[in-house]
Amino acid sequence: MILKKLREEVLEANLELVRRGLVLYTFGNASGIDRDEGLIAIKPSGVAYETMKPEDLVIVNLGGEIVEGSLRPSSDLATHLILYRAFGGIGGVAHTHSRAATAWAQSGREIPCFGTTHADYFHGPIPVTKALTPAEIRADYEANTGQAIVRRFAKLDPLHAPAVLVAGHAPFCWGKSPAEAAPVAVIVEEIAAMAFQTLTANPKARPISKHLHDKHFLRKHGDDAYYGQKR
Amino acid sequence: MILKKLREEVLEANLELVRRGLVLYTFGNASGIDRDEGLIAIKPSGVAYETMKPEDLVIVNLGGEIVEGSLRPSSDLATHLILYRAFGGIGGVAHTHSRAATAWAQSGREIPCFGTTHADYFHGPIPVTKALTPAEIRADYEANTGQAIVRRFAKLDPLHAPAVLVAGHAPFCWGKSPAEAAPVAVIVEEIAAMAFQTLTANPKARPISKHLHDKHFLRKHGDDAYYGQKR
Amino acid sequence: MILKKLREEVLEANLELVRRGLVLYTFGNASGIDRDEGLIAIKPSGVAYETMKPEDLVIVNLGGEIVEGSLRPSSDLATHLILYRAFGGIGGVAHTHSRAATAWAQSGREIPCFGTTHADYFHGPIPVTKALTPAEIRADYEANTGQAIVRRFAKLDPLHAPAVLVAGHAPFCWGKSPAEAAPVAVIVEEIAAMAFQTLTANPKARPISKHLHDKHFLRKHGDDAYYGQKR
Amino acid sequence: MILKKLREEVLEANLELVRRGLVLYTFGNASGIDRDEGLIAIKPSGVAYETMKPEDLVIVNLGGEIVEGSLRPSSDLATHLILYRAFGGIGGVAHTHSRAATAWAQSGREIPCFGTTHADYFHGPIPVTKALTPAEIRADYEANTGQAIVRRFAKLDPLHAPAVLVAGHAPFCWGKSPAEAAPVAVIVEEIAAMAFQTLTANPKARPISKHLHDKHFLRKHGDDAYYGQKR
Repeated sequence: MILKKLREEVLEANLELVRRGLVLYTFGNASGIDRDEGLIAIKPSGVAYETMKPEDLVIVNLGGEIVEGSLRPSSDLATHLILYRAFGGIGGVAHTHSRAATAWAQSGREIPCFGTTHADYFHGPIPVTKALTPAEIRADYEANTGQAIVRRFAKLDPLHAPAVLVAGHAPFCWGKSPAEAAPVAVIVEEIAAMAFQTLTANPKARPISKHLHDKHFLRKHGDDAYYGQKR
Repeated sequence: MILKKLREEVLEANLELVRRGLVLYTFGNASGIDRDEGLIAIKPSGVAYETMKPEDLVIVNLGGEIVEGSLRPSSDLATHLILYRAFGGIGGVAHTHSRAATAWAQSGREIPCFGTTHADYFHGPIPVTKALTPAEIRADYEANTGQAIVRRFAKLDPLHAPAVLVAGHAPFCWGKSPAEAAPVAVIVEEIAAMAFQTLTANPKARPISKHLHDKHFLRKHGDDAYYGQKR
Repeated sequence: MILKKLREEVLEANLELVRRGLVLYTFGNASGIDRDEGLIAIKPSGVAYETMKPEDLVIVNLGGEIVEGSLRPSSDLATHLILYRAFGGIGGVAHTHSRAATAWAQSGREIPCFGTTHADYFHGPIPVTKALTPAEIRADYEANTGQAIVRRFAKLDPLHAPAVLVAGHAPFCWGKSPAEAAPVAVIVEEIAAMAFQTLTANPKARPISKHLHDKHFLRKHGDDAYYGQKR
Repeated sequence: MILKKLREEVLEANLELVRRGLVLYTFGNASGIDRDEGLIAIKPSGVAYETMKPEDLVIVNLGGEIVEGSLRPSSDLATHLILYRAFGGIGGVAHTHSRAATAWAQSGREIPCFGTTHADYFHGPIPVTKALTPAEIRADYEANTGQAIVRRFAKLDPLHAPAVLVAGHAPFCWGKSPAEAAPVAVIVEEIAAMAFQTLTANPKARPISKHLHDKHFLRKHGDDAYYGQKR
């Protein structure tokens, strides 16, 4: 069995989604990439989380060919592959249908940055893709979903906005590793839920100022970050 | 004790509703049918789930006569019977008063297909019945509830829309087996909850396109389905 | 220690409120009455549920005098007493600040009967009291809260509407015994939560018809009730 | 290791926030002060709660200098220090990004006192700060957050309003000890959640009367308090 460590990390990322209540049954999937090998480990399609083992994960190359594994990979594999090819800095992808984030995706609206919880992770709104055309849906749908995400990020740094809402579908989230991608999915769900309640309390709520937004994002992610322990 | 396997499956379906937080106390009920025998196993009325055993389930025929069992069957039995008689392809029925789905039923509105989570299971909106007439409520109320469902499905395939909202009441859900029916109830609750939040984020939210809807439903349920493992 | 069985039932009713997530810290209280003895067992004030024992409950008479117990009774005792004196058919009272029911109480509006979940327990809306006058708040506040409830029930049967929303405060619930009162509090919370979502899905949602309302209430509570097992 | 008891109390306050579901990952922090020593124990920054031990807490003086501890203190330390210096009666501070309270903070609106649950803890609305200026955000941001809180309390008694919503950010809560501060954070979350639902049920909902507000606050906190057991 190759890539044992990556398999374990990806399994753990999948299980984190379950533990945090983000997935029902077999909804959702997480993957990770070994950039040196150019190989990806991804959840198999439609398999129960409770009994999943590292050897059940499917290893594919960046072209989507199965390198090791007897199960079918997640039906969203093609979306993951597009993200890994376009976003060189990412090492893990997590996709869920978590309730609040999915509802925002269904609403077709980006999530405005209403507060510092959001600003701690995203240097801007949580973006939403454009709807796919009928032709893009008909053939290579999952790859075209990835392409719609990539187009949305033409002017965005994927590590400054580590998630996207696919319109009418659900969020895709990522990070430098599978272990970073899964918590982004958790936090996106929380941000989405807070944003609804913000609008309920004040339908005219406004995003926070760019100054406050920058401050929070950069105290965690900038060159002079001072959150957490020194590494 | 006859139909031991069916009893166990139906008990398990009832317990799945409890585990997923869909029922309070003795609300809700699930049943299953053995089509060869023409016999149905259904939850007894008003009995606690915690102590329920396979032998507590009640076996009835399609005419509603008790074939085996010392307890009264669920008071919704007559609704289940109508569904089994009208929908030849179904093998299990689950009825809950789960919060969000019940609220949609109370609102009297079908749930529009706002996203792919919905489209993965329903090839259209989640339909709502018409209100019963005073006469239909007065006598044979539970059977008439079933008839209202059947009328609503005059032009619908029950396996393409495996649940209905009974107006002013709650959802009835089904599947090819009891093991399929219970998860439909779980997913209907999730879809209903997401639909509220979708409207909160965007009161003018629109259903997804027919193209996207077809794509998601058919990748799971069509002749060329490619979700999950080959069977 | 007198009234051991009543103490145990009342403790259990208090714990049911905790298990169902209806109380935070020491919010909420339940009591029960022995009609033959004219004595009431009630939760002590501000004591943690986790360590509460039957002997911690306070026994008082209908005049509010402590008959047995070294702790102060719940500060809402006077409200409970008024209810026991005015509503001869009740044997237990449960008071919580559960989230959704309290929010309806805060809104000052009765909960319309939007569906059968509600109709199964209440033969009408869940009523709300009028606000107390400054004089009623100043002196004997808790007793006056009880009087406001009793006035609201001038034309209502307390066993046909086993709960009330005290305006700006929270629900008081009751039943024929402590074991019946606590589940009413649980169900009122669920009905309240569903009612919000009903209004979210359809701000113009209407109560169900009197026919359907009667049918559901009476199939559980009327002379010809056919829900549950024969007793 | 100095201040063992304070460390344990502060650790326990941090864990209470976790147990009550108020924090995701390492969001949130609690601290406590030993007024005699003039020393504060605070959670370290970005460390997992599950493995945190008393010795991981950081001891600082009121000037913010580390007196004992090898980890960085919470990045919000400067806010805590300002509160301890300005509010002489407080002994503990808890800061969370709990969902509903944070959403109110994001909405920029104070939480009106819609009911007695709120009045039991706050003798007025839950106040919200003014937004910081760009200059206040740029330098000494965390201290300036504290200053904005202090300015908001120019005419308020911090023990009569034991929490504040920092606009666009989240709540800061306090009490006479760390053991009092953490439950305030729990209760603020509940009050915030109820307030949303109150507005959903009745968008024109009004605060309770001053008479009722005074009654509830003073029966718990006034000179003649009669809630709980005598101490």
